[in-house]
Amino acid sequence: MLLCDIGNTSYHFLNDTKDYKEETNSFNPATLTEKVFYICVNPHAKEVLKKLDNWVDLSWHVEMSGYYETMGVDRIFACEAIENGIIIDAGTALTVDLVKNGIFGGGFIYPGVRAMSQAYKNISSVLDYSFNFELDLDKMPKNSADAISYGYLKTLHSEVMSHDMELFLTGGDAKRFASIFPHARIDETLIFKGMKKIIKKANLC
Amino acid sequence: MLLCDIGNTSYHFLNDTKDYKEETNSFNPATLTEKVFYICVNPHAKEVLKKLDNWVDLSWHVEMSGYYETMGVDRIFACEAIENGIIIDAGTALTVDLVKNGIFGGGFIYPGVRAMSQAYKNISSVLDYSFNFELDLDKMPKNSADAISYGYLKTLHSEVMSHDMELFLTGGDAKRFASIFPHARIDETLIFKGMKKIIKKANLC
Repeated sequence: MLLCDIGNTSYHFLNDTKDYKEETNSFNPATLTEKVFYICVNPHAKEVLKKLDNWVDLSWHVEMSGYYETMGVDRIFACEAIENGIIIDAGTALTVDLVKNGIFGGGFIYPGVRAMSQAYKNISSVLDYSFNFELDLDKMPKNSADAISYGYLKTLHSEVMSHDMELFLTGGDAKRFASIFPHARIDETLIFKGMKKIIKKANLC
Repeated sequence: MLLCDIGNTSYHFLNDTKDYKEETNSFNPATLTEKVFYICVNPHAKEVLKKLDNWVDLSWHVEMSGYYETMGVDRIFACEAIENGIIIDAGTALTVDLVKNGIFGGGFIYPGVRAMSQAYKNISSVLDYSFNFELDLDKMPKNSADAISYGYLKTLHSEVMSHDMELFLTGGDAKRFASIFPHARIDETLIFKGMKKIIKKANLC
């Protein structure tokens, strides 16, 4: 069974247990002839895939009533993968979603590493530092580099930890955030787990 | 006594109890002949003021050992104004500084409203919303506008409230942040209070 999670920059495939990526601007999905179950947040790819019969859009098979209309389908499928906990998906945006007894309990959107770094840089060139993920979160900083790292990371940390739930880290920057959430489970295939659950529920395979 | 706090966009004056602003790109400080006690974070204005004998730079009179070298002088003077508490200065950047028994306990830098709004917009046009300062901070959001507002405001709120200290709000956006920190004291002249303290300590007046 071939699964695919399509974002703005890549097609992320899972073939049984092996995952790999293809770039959206060079990969032609028509070259695949086998059945592919997918979700997609990329508007251009969506249009292309609509016309290919072997590509099956799983977003039609999920019960949407517990979510909200403009919520990214990748967030929804990550939520479907777990029963209880908070999912931090650290990508271009960083999304934080809460699931309690299998029900979506709301979530929020925070800038990803690159976007936040650019935000500080746009304020002033003196705030152009890389974030220090090894920062001591228990001490208010007394230097500029840590003052922006703390501003980005500790604020997020304080909010996430206040919910006192199991944490799941996914997305391209999951490993970097693991240093500030050391007890979180890193699972870069969380969305695929959600997809498999929906395939089973909908008897698609 | 005339005091002046000079930022990147304005000269902020306090004449006894009346405060007013002049724009940095149109105001000529040489037109004033009376003594002006000032602090300045604007590199261009700094150069101009150096040559004017009646403009007295107060940053030379503050005991710097408790602070750090690259810390903005405006943050330092706001800290000098209080004995205990957290100061949130909501401007282009939003700075959060902690003072305990008159000693600086560290601080962090967060993007101001406009910079953070731009950060979300840069990630995707679908995240181009104005922040909702009337947001319910006790509920994880289930719509996009609140999902970004919560990402910006609640993360900051969780971190600030975790210190359990008295809060002081200052800076151009102080009033907007008052809705998420309803118990904070709004004091737009906090920096001037710090300046007055230093003038007294240094016997300048």
